[in-house]
Amino acid sequence: MRPEDLVVLKLGGSAITFKDRPLEADETTIKRLAGEIAASGVCKLIIVHGGGSFGHPLAHRYGIHEGLKGNWQLRGLAETHLAMEELNRLVVGALAAEGLPAVPLPPISCFTTRRGRISKAFLEPLRALLALGAVPVLYGDVVLDEAQGFAILSGDQITAYLALTLGASRVVLALCVDGVFTKDPLKHPDARLVERLRPEDLSALEAGGSAALDVTGGMGEKLREMAPVASAGVPVLLVNARVPGNVLKALRGEKVRGTLFLA
Amino acid sequence: MRPEDLVVLKLGGSAITFKDRPLEADETTIKRLAGEIAASGVCKLIIVHGGGSFGHPLAHRYGIHEGLKGNWQLRGLAETHLAMEELNRLVVGALAAEGLPAVPLPPISCFTTRRGRISKAFLEPLRALLALGAVPVLYGDVVLDEAQGFAILSGDQITAYLALTLGASRVVLALCVDGVFTKDPLKHPDARLVERLRPEDLSALEAGGSAALDVTGGMGEKLREMAPVASAGVPVLLVNARVPGNVLKALRGEKVRGTLFLA
Repeated sequence: MRPEDLVVLKLGGSAITFKDRPLEADETTIKRLAGEIAASGVCKLIIVHGGGSFGHPLAHRYGIHEGLKGNWQLRGLAETHLAMEELNRLVVGALAAEGLPAVPLPPISCFTTRRGRISKAFLEPLRALLALGAVPVLYGDVVLDEAQGFAILSGDQITAYLALTLGASRVVLALCVDGVFTKDPLKHPDARLVERLRPEDLSALEAGGSAALDVTGGMGEKLREMAPVASAGVPVLLVNARVPGNVLKALRGEKVRGTLFLA
Repeated sequence: MRPEDLVVLKLGGSAITFKDRPLEADETTIKRLAGEIAASGVCKLIIVHGGGSFGHPLAHRYGIHEGLKGNWQLRGLAETHLAMEELNRLVVGALAAEGLPAVPLPPISCFTTRRGRISKAFLEPLRALLALGAVPVLYGDVVLDEAQGFAILSGDQITAYLALTLGASRVVLALCVDGVFTKDPLKHPDARLVERLRPEDLSALEAGGSAALDVTGGMGEKLREMAPVASAGVPVLLVNARVPGNVLKALRGEKVRGTLFLA
């Protein structure tokens, strides 16, 4: 891997928070991941993290994902963003403690959407930070939407957008599962990890085909978001961040258990 | 004052922090000011705050204001920004506690400069937040600079820029002094408050003229930054935020002790 190669690392919300405990971060995992990121030696890195138990409960309580319905949601917009900022502070703090010059770039201030899809992006600060050697940190956030007032912009959409726009060499998705399975592994003991996945496998499945893939939960949406990246020839590696050393290996480009999504 | 009239309120760093105590905010004053802002009933409001004892010591330690000299400053860039974010969180938290939908927009993510002057600005989120009735909160920050790597973008420059670009009806500068004096009031008991100041008075002074004005400390820089606003016919009112009720009156457009800077 060359020093000029850009890597986009997505830290899944479910990997860094306790899904069933609102506003509770898994600080032990965050600290360990920060250590792995610092040890990886990747020079040009963007980190994007999800919201997990910070963003989702508030966004749902106020119907933020449905766009503007009434003024009572304004407070929800502010609260949802502040909750995401709180999680972001823990992530950035852990990175800083490892000596990484991490700089948060809140998506609410540098992206707008149109019906939930990115319509405008102000990437000058991000590009300049990367050129200096700093580590921009973004996250799933509530953003202003040209058509519906506001919307939830997922960390996955940001990850795919940045990887394509900035020409990333690799994307690493750090999740709380090993990758994509043939069946739901929680229900089927014979479920197998899919080590190599192509965008065509996903299209076949969507067309009602017989591809043996478990895309329940958020996995289907995640793969659809990443499909243009994989199709563009940028490897997207899904690994389990709960297993120590996985993110380190994935960042270094070493062999690691997971799913490689690539055309 | 009409509901569609935009007011830009600058909370001086020296009014909301203890200048002589690094990283210590004056939380009592911040809470009181949040109460006055909420009570003012201004519908369309942008708040910009200074750094005071949060931004300045770190920025100086790392020479952030001098631009990029070496990689050792990268950590300083990140630390300076995080310190400013910390102060911002206290301000936004106090506003939220008063029921105001305050949303932070960190300048590092939506402005770039060229030799310390704003060169690019991404104002879509700010405009959209105002249209929804939310209160954008910005602050003096370290930003990326096209010519020198990075720079300090002062809250005053942001205030003047937004007031002119968005067509504010009024600017209120909440300081820790009553306004502009004829002489330094700490040294001269006969110093008089200048209640009405014109941009010409400032130009006369700079041309070596005899205008009786004390522009020591940061006051001269502040007035030079605000001169284009005052010249454009937008009233800039300087008031002492340490006096309870002053910011409330200034926001409501009521009579208050201070300096009115206007062409």
